[in-house]
Amino acid sequence: MTANTTRTALGVEYNGAAFHGWQRQSAPVIATVQQALEHALSQIADQTVTVNCAGRTDTGVHGTGQVVHFESTAERGEKAWIQGTNSHLPPQVRVQWARTVSDDFHARHSALSRRYRYVIYTGAVRPAALYQQLTHVKDELDVIRMHEAAQHLLGENDFSAFRAAGCQSRTPMRCINELSVSRQRRFIVVEVEANAFLLHMVRNIVGALLEVGAGRRPPDWIRQVLATRDRRQNAVTAKPDGLYLVNVAYPERFGLPVLPLGPCFL
Amino acid sequence: MTANTTRTALGVEYNGAAFHGWQRQSAPVIATVQQALEHALSQIADQTVTVNCAGRTDTGVHGTGQVVHFESTAERGEKAWIQGTNSHLPPQVRVQWARTVSDDFHARHSALSRRYRYVIYTGAVRPAALYQQLTHVKDELDVIRMHEAAQHLLGENDFSAFRAAGCQSRTPMRCINELSVSRQRRFIVVEVEANAFLLHMVRNIVGALLEVGAGRRPPDWIRQVLATRDRRQNAVTAKPDGLYLVNVAYPERFGLPVLPLGPCFL
Repeated sequence: MTANTTRTALGVEYNGAAFHGWQRQSAPVIATVQQALEHALSQIADQTVTVNCAGRTDTGVHGTGQVVHFESTAERGEKAWIQGTNSHLPPQVRVQWARTVSDDFHARHSALSRRYRYVIYTGAVRPAALYQQLTHVKDELDVIRMHEAAQHLLGENDFSAFRAAGCQSRTPMRCINELSVSRQRRFIVVEVEANAFLLHMVRNIVGALLEVGAGRRPPDWIRQVLATRDRRQNAVTAKPDGLYLVNVAYPERFGLPVLPLGPCFL
Repeated sequence: MTANTTRTALGVEYNGAAFHGWQRQSAPVIATVQQALEHALSQIADQTVTVNCAGRTDTGVHGTGQVVHFESTAERGEKAWIQGTNSHLPPQVRVQWARTVSDDFHARHSALSRRYRYVIYTGAVRPAALYQQLTHVKDELDVIRMHEAAQHLLGENDFSAFRAAGCQSRTPMRCINELSVSRQRRFIVVEVEANAFLLHMVRNIVGALLEVGAGRRPPDWIRQVLATRDRRQNAVTAKPDGLYLVNVAYPERFGLPVLPLGPCFL
């Protein structure tokens, strides 16, 4: 980082249905959120901008509270980083806020925790108006049992049984601070906050909770799955459609804005 | 109608963003909801099926409570008309229910009233996750004044000032039973029920209410607009994005299902 470089943090919202996940791909024809954002920022900065995000989301996963940071020697105000960048973005991606941050801020390393929300719609017929924004499950689900099962995953644990094969993390240890399952209007919502997540961890947790909710497994089965540390003992990975990265928490000293939690249909 | 013809009513939900409106177009390359539905029904019936709907919606307008009817000599159960048809539909359209109805049922002529919901999101930045499902307005809006203005349109009136040029209705008279404006969570919702609507009537009502809500016009200006019977005296037509046909009411004797009102993010 050179002397006249400024570090900026951005809040980013996106509809993941239009993208092949967050991360930039080597083949530039594959549309990803990172690519769209870096392209737009580079137009405003008039130089190549690369971003670091708090949590890389999979194909089809949405973000309402994603946070990134980048460095640039371009001197632009926060308004330019918001409105200017948005004018170069497809409508499925929007910069919500921008803040100049100190050099020790890092979107990934400074994050204290991430919060995801998984929204399930149960019923005979798949919802059409909110196509690709909810996960549709035909089974009647027992929310009380799902919530009970979820409590077995709280705290610091080895989440190998909830980790996808391609996960590059050095450790399978993660700490879940909160994991709740509740019925909200016509939806069942799984809300989970952890220090960080392994690859497909939220979707594998939801996959296991769906087994319990449908009555195919008892609530304490999930504790057995956790203890095996074996992905093959777990249920199938739940779909990405209903998954939203809704918040990333940072130490107060960085002075970042805190928005109401989305997705805004809840 | 021949002796062995059965009349069936369907409840239909759709995301209008993917379609050029409801109505079938002469050029078959233009995707409309009616075309998608008739194509799927014809596959199940193994004969050409044409449908009549309760309310033709514009390009980009969504439906969570659309109702259609059709006639067919094909003998199929309600389950086949739902699940079979859905298997031939794009995911943005779903048949929610099917009912065999008496020969005097007509989706348009038997309807007692239609109900639309218009959902506005206010804020500096356009919502990205719910792209094409909300209307974004940058102005701060005064919901109380909008609701006050709306009350001037209740009852039987000549709605020529709220009617698009291409409207083919023989009369500009319509009766609004209910028109309310309220703040719900992060949204402003305009809810309107009338015996029927003219072309663009809901969007022209919302266009006028937005003028009042932004403080550019007093609430009783809307009564003056109504009295002129002149479309040129009115505000610009509001966008289709946030508009949903949420319900069509029929006499009880037809025995049609009544679903919870959508869109389900409210």
